[in-house]
Amino acid sequence: MRADFKSLGGLVVVLVAAVTTAARAADDPLPSWNDVASRKAVLGFVARVTEEKSSDFVPVPDRVAVFDNDGTLWCEQPMYVQAVFIRDRIRAMAPDHPEWKRLQPFKALLEGDRAALADVGQEGLVDVVTATHAGMTSDEFAGLVRDWIARAEHPRFKRLYTRCVYQPMLELLAYLRANGFKTFIVSGGGVEFMRVWAEPVYGLPPSQVVGSTVRTRYELRGETPVLMRLPEVDFIDDHAGKPVGIGKFIGQRPIAAFGNSDGDYEMLRYVTSGSGPRFGLVVHHTDADREYAYDRDSTVGRLARALDEAPARGWTVVDMKRDWRVVFPPEK
Amino acid sequence: MRADFKSLGGLVVVLVAAVTTAARAADDPLPSWNDVASRKAVLGFVARVTEEKSSDFVPVPDRVAVFDNDGTLWCEQPMYVQAVFIRDRIRAMAPDHPEWKRLQPFKALLEGDRAALADVGQEGLVDVVTATHAGMTSDEFAGLVRDWIARAEHPRFKRLYTRCVYQPMLELLAYLRANGFKTFIVSGGGVEFMRVWAEPVYGLPPSQVVGSTVRTRYELRGETPVLMRLPEVDFIDDHAGKPVGIGKFIGQRPIAAFGNSDGDYEMLRYVTSGSGPRFGLVVHHTDADREYAYDRDSTVGRLARALDEAPARGWTVVDMKRDWRVVFPPEK
Repeated sequence: MRADFKSLGGLVVVLVAAVTTAARAADDPLPSWNDVASRKAVLGFVARVTEEKSSDFVPVPDRVAVFDNDGTLWCEQPMYVQAVFIRDRIRAMAPDHPEWKRLQPFKALLEGDRAALADVGQEGLVDVVTATHAGMTSDEFAGLVRDWIARAEHPRFKRLYTRCVYQPMLELLAYLRANGFKTFIVSGGGVEFMRVWAEPVYGLPPSQVVGSTVRTRYELRGETPVLMRLPEVDFIDDHAGKPVGIGKFIGQRPIAAFGNSDGDYEMLRYVTSGSGPRFGLVVHHTDADREYAYDRDSTVGRLARALDEAPARGWTVVDMKRDWRVVFPPEK
Repeated sequence: MRADFKSLGGLVVVLVAAVTTAARAADDPLPSWNDVASRKAVLGFVARVTEEKSSDFVPVPDRVAVFDNDGTLWCEQPMYVQAVFIRDRIRAMAPDHPEWKRLQPFKALLEGDRAALADVGQEGLVDVVTATHAGMTSDEFAGLVRDWIARAEHPRFKRLYTRCVYQPMLELLAYLRANGFKTFIVSGGGVEFMRVWAEPVYGLPPSQVVGSTVRTRYELRGETPVLMRLPEVDFIDDHAGKPVGIGKFIGQRPIAAFGNSDGDYEMLRYVTSGSGPRFGLVVHHTDADREYAYDRDSTVGRLARALDEAPARGWTVVDMKRDWRVVFPPEK
């Protein structure tokens, strides 16, 4: 009997847990978030701006939310995904460029010399971007990205980079859209790198992806008009460039911003300083087991100022380890 | 009896006409278009790309249509509306700039010297744009435009410029959107000039307005972040700049383009040269009575090459006088 009771008790626990999970899944727009302060802050903000009788009500056309990409929507460690793409392009192109064996930062990329890579400045970065991202049409570049992203895998998680996106953030994107928000990526990454896969991965059409750009030129190839990518940076959409990119591409001040590093600091300030209800959120990477733990000492996605000022500025901080029930989507 | 028959016949004609008009209005998405080739071409294209069983079917995410603004969606004669805005700004600012009385093109603008204005080159244009469009925040500039556009009237039609839009084109925008199209303006005009009123007038949110830009800089005013407009042109979205602007802001090749001048030629070619079903349309201003009649000899909205090549390239040409039942929306 006791044994039976115990079994029965165990079964009840399992059943109750299953029912609770199912009940929560049915009406919970954020099932991958634990029931903590960050989740409550998101739900509270959306409730306030969508409730017509609320003094904080925001009409649908003004419900614009911006998301950083690297480290906010998908994993940026141990290396920005676009940097991996560039490295792979450099390796593929190396046989035609013997001089790269002696020329930095090409040498470091070819040899996988991370210490040397950490010293690459803006100028070196521009060199590799122009070497790998220019001299072809926009359509050709999109084709290269499409082929690469379809097979490139994360070195630690052994899954496609497009599956190293954060399940809780996918739920957040969907939840905001279901509540009349128009969602945009505002990233330091290249727009033409992201636009290729932003629609299937995040549900974002190309025009809702804002990022860094290279110059292009309209040309005729025979009788066919093409956009030729020039070896010239047009716009860097990072740090103070993010509010500039928002003004240029989106044309209105969003009411919510989501980031994870000091590269998002100016965007967070710009968005949350407008009048009316505002929401700022910082994803803090605290989970070395399920993902990575890093902040002020990281070269990738350094987070210090935005973390320090978050409380005073009313920004919500997500503690990834504590707040997220799962990190990545289940593998199919 | 004969007289009665005649009256009765007349009444029947009137009644039949009234019934026909009512019936057509009820199910006709383009009631302001006469039943001519251009209207049929539009309807046929939309039917083909939206019919799932059609070999020309286009999925919703690829249904992107771009519209020039000046001369395509609203009247650009006798002067581009933004040029009138600039002239009025110059006049308002003139007391603080006595040197403008001797300096071209300011002198010509202040004196309304249209002959001298016609000679203003790109450089002179940049001078007046930077003098009137920079040195303030984006929000302050939007406020100036908002105040001006709320009261500025067309000199001939004596109605607000925002009511000098083409009713048939408003119907076309709505019809395309009802069929899953995402519609964009791609104009040589300044984005921050158009974005202020594009939503109420055309139903287009700011992010769906592509145009020329000046550089902006993120700055703090005290503790408040602002975007400061710099006296520096960032991008000219005209002629070969239009496909470049499409690539940069929209990020995919539209399947339909609507223009009225040679400034739209490259955009029309770029859009209609993609694979799959494509649609190009040129509004030809042929109606001196109801609007204006101009093409290859006009300094504003010159149309020659796009008109000459339209038949060979399969572009539909609207003869405004013949094709449009009404030009402007009824005044309320």
